[in-house]
Amino acid sequence: MRFPVLVEVRLRPGIADPQGATIQRALPALGFDGVQEVRVGKAIRFTVEAPDASAAGRQVDELCQRLLANPVIEDTTVSLGEPV
Amino acid sequence: MRFPVLVEVRLRPGIADPQGATIQRALPALGFDGVQEVRVGKAIRFTVEAPDASAAGRQVDELCQRLLANPVIEDTTVSLGEPV
Repeated sequence: MRFPVLVEVRLRPGIADPQGATIQRALPALGFDGVQEVRVGKAIRFTVEAPDASAAGRQVDELCQRLLANPVIEDTTVSLGEPV
Repeated sequence: MRFPVLVEVRLRPGIADPQGATIQRALPALGFDGVQEVRVGKAIRFTVEAPDASAAGRQVDELCQRLLANPVIEDTTVSLGEPV
């Protein structure tokens, strides 16, 4: 079965986020005054072939740790979709 | 009320994604053979101050169009959380 996967990689709390800070600085000039705490991460989508959902989840977790995220400064959230 | 927001910005289908292609090329060497269709987008989190959810949604949609995404090559998905 082939599972669609969405991995969100975001900086851990306390890690400086210059990209988010730049967006936040630009907002008042565009008229958006109520926006705060901007943090920019990555949204990685792919599909994974696995016999069942738990095997797919294990494979994705290992992939996050070894390739997609730096666990020292980043957290990940995995969303596994329905197999197609 | 202050609403937490997650905006996913991803490249439209058919737009070349060199970052995703690079990840995909690296996978077989790491032992991940079943992973396909890797696409890398952005996951932007922030909070927005608004009187109700529909006003927050309108503000976030405008923000996506004017600052967060390039609508020519990118799609966005907005998830509005419960106000805190």
